[in-house]
Amino acid sequence: MRIVLDAMGSDDYPVPDVAGAVLAAREWGDEIILVGREDAIRQELDGQDTAGLKLEIVHASQVIEMKDEPAWAAREKTDSSMHVGTALVRDGQADAYVTAGNTGGVLAVATLYTLRRIAGVKRPALAPIMPFPAGHVVMVDIGANADCTPEFLRQFAVMGDVYARAVLGRDNPRVALLSNGEESSKGNSLVKETHKLLANMGLNFVGNLEPKEILAFEADVVVVDGFSGNVFLKTLEATAKMLTGVIRDEIKASPLTAVGGLLAKPAFRRVGKQLDPSEVGGVPLLGVDGVVIIGHGRSDAHAIKNAIRQARKAVQGGVVEAIRQGIQA
Amino acid sequence: MRIVLDAMGSDDYPVPDVAGAVLAAREWGDEIILVGREDAIRQELDGQDTAGLKLEIVHASQVIEMKDEPAWAAREKTDSSMHVGTALVRDGQADAYVTAGNTGGVLAVATLYTLRRIAGVKRPALAPIMPFPAGHVVMVDIGANADCTPEFLRQFAVMGDVYARAVLGRDNPRVALLSNGEESSKGNSLVKETHKLLANMGLNFVGNLEPKEILAFEADVVVVDGFSGNVFLKTLEATAKMLTGVIRDEIKASPLTAVGGLLAKPAFRRVGKQLDPSEVGGVPLLGVDGVVIIGHGRSDAHAIKNAIRQARKAVQGGVVEAIRQGIQA
Repeated sequence: MRIVLDAMGSDDYPVPDVAGAVLAAREWGDEIILVGREDAIRQELDGQDTAGLKLEIVHASQVIEMKDEPAWAAREKTDSSMHVGTALVRDGQADAYVTAGNTGGVLAVATLYTLRRIAGVKRPALAPIMPFPAGHVVMVDIGANADCTPEFLRQFAVMGDVYARAVLGRDNPRVALLSNGEESSKGNSLVKETHKLLANMGLNFVGNLEPKEILAFEADVVVVDGFSGNVFLKTLEATAKMLTGVIRDEIKASPLTAVGGLLAKPAFRRVGKQLDPSEVGGVPLLGVDGVVIIGHGRSDAHAIKNAIRQARKAVQGGVVEAIRQGIQA
Repeated sequence: MRIVLDAMGSDDYPVPDVAGAVLAAREWGDEIILVGREDAIRQELDGQDTAGLKLEIVHASQVIEMKDEPAWAAREKTDSSMHVGTALVRDGQADAYVTAGNTGGVLAVATLYTLRRIAGVKRPALAPIMPFPAGHVVMVDIGANADCTPEFLRQFAVMGDVYARAVLGRDNPRVALLSNGEESSKGNSLVKETHKLLANMGLNFVGNLEPKEILAFEADVVVVDGFSGNVFLKTLEATAKMLTGVIRDEIKASPLTAVGGLLAKPAFRRVGKQLDPSEVGGVPLLGVDGVVIIGHGRSDAHAIKNAIRQARKAVQGGVVEAIRQGIQA
């Protein structure tokens, strides 16, 4: 397998990016194509033990930075590592593209300039795997499409179903709609309209679910417009961070509880690892004509490696081909 | 002050409801009018020490139950404690109405049958005070209106501003829009349109905020459509519950961390109390022509008392009159 890794992606590029690529090349023996400024990548590789690894460098002179306005950068920086890297996938020279860079940037580059959409797909969507303790859940969409129609959401359901089969190995994925109540009468007009569509398309549609049911793993795939999905994901992250902060402060507030906190530290560490999204990898951009995985800007080498693992699974599961067939059907 | 307490509200009515009313009557010396089935209320009061308290019973033969479909119940159960109780406020015989009952039910009864909307208000909204560690925040709306227009949200901003002044004592409340990004270019079309309206109406509008900024108390009032607001609130609650569950499990998983957890227990208790919404009271229904506070179905006597406290503050702050003036302006 040949996987493109955007060496200029993460907040600290190219350090964690190159290190993660080396880890992945060593673990799985795949060929990793590092795309970005050749001198910077070469310098970073010099510090690594790369003996026997299949690593290649493809030069790209420009970088789409985190602060760049996505549409502008996608239009103007045409020799960016995102353009060059996704073009390698488009041209059949690689099987997947992985980046920890500007999400809006790669979305625009892949959708509008290089890979483009799979025939029939209205809107590509961001579909992270959320590592809840009760089970891993795919949510489509968490931010690519702030405004959605029922037809977009119907396609998100198809793509999520395919992805849960191919990457999570679910046999007959339970597909749900995120809503403000379980009854089919609940939801905004978008949810109500989409509910009717999803009930009649041969999916294992389990209806509307509220956040607590989603966290309790009552579905494998959750369909939602990108605005509400983004609110869900960011509220979840912000709440977890706030709560751990408050717990830390309260534990430190008295000597006795501080000792207790010290003894309980291994438990807190296990909790953190269990809920860490970077253990899962990155967020796939479903609906473009090629495998694209977007990692978090704050990725370390370990997170980059996990994002590459996720790209491998998507390639092995034939996600793109399965979406093509699912959308046509 | 005369406050109506729906004795048939909570999941365990009339037990916590009546007990909470007794606590409130004792603490503040207000007159509490208990509305509901007279025999059930009288029986419950018999077990309480009510000497010197101003407690009155007004009979209502019907109960809108939690399982009742709101629109149907509001139309058919016209002698419910919700109809009779809110009518007392409408007729000037009481200053506020408090219930821990069916939210949709009281919404329908108050809006369509008894109090009705303040002149000019398009849609009443549910506006809880969220007790974040960094500061208390009012969010409007968290579920009364799944589909909203920019004009609805503009009015939510006015009502939230008034409420933050009157009940939280904020001088010049910072009003924000919940969004999927801070820039004014972010958001779905509803947020973008509303952003323009809020920027030009003399409020202290601080722009779009993401969930993490809301939890960090970067605004006093957060304006949002009822669907996304509901997703925000329920995701927050579900995440907190999931996280505390995982922490508990991991602490119990080894003897050493279990001892640590035991020692740290007072800290966890303080965290729970700090974040408990029932410490704040209930959720006001803003925009109807009278003070209505809706407590959680699982309220205990302490939570009922806090909801009554919140009703007192809304009356003292002149919330209804201030909304009337704000909407006219």
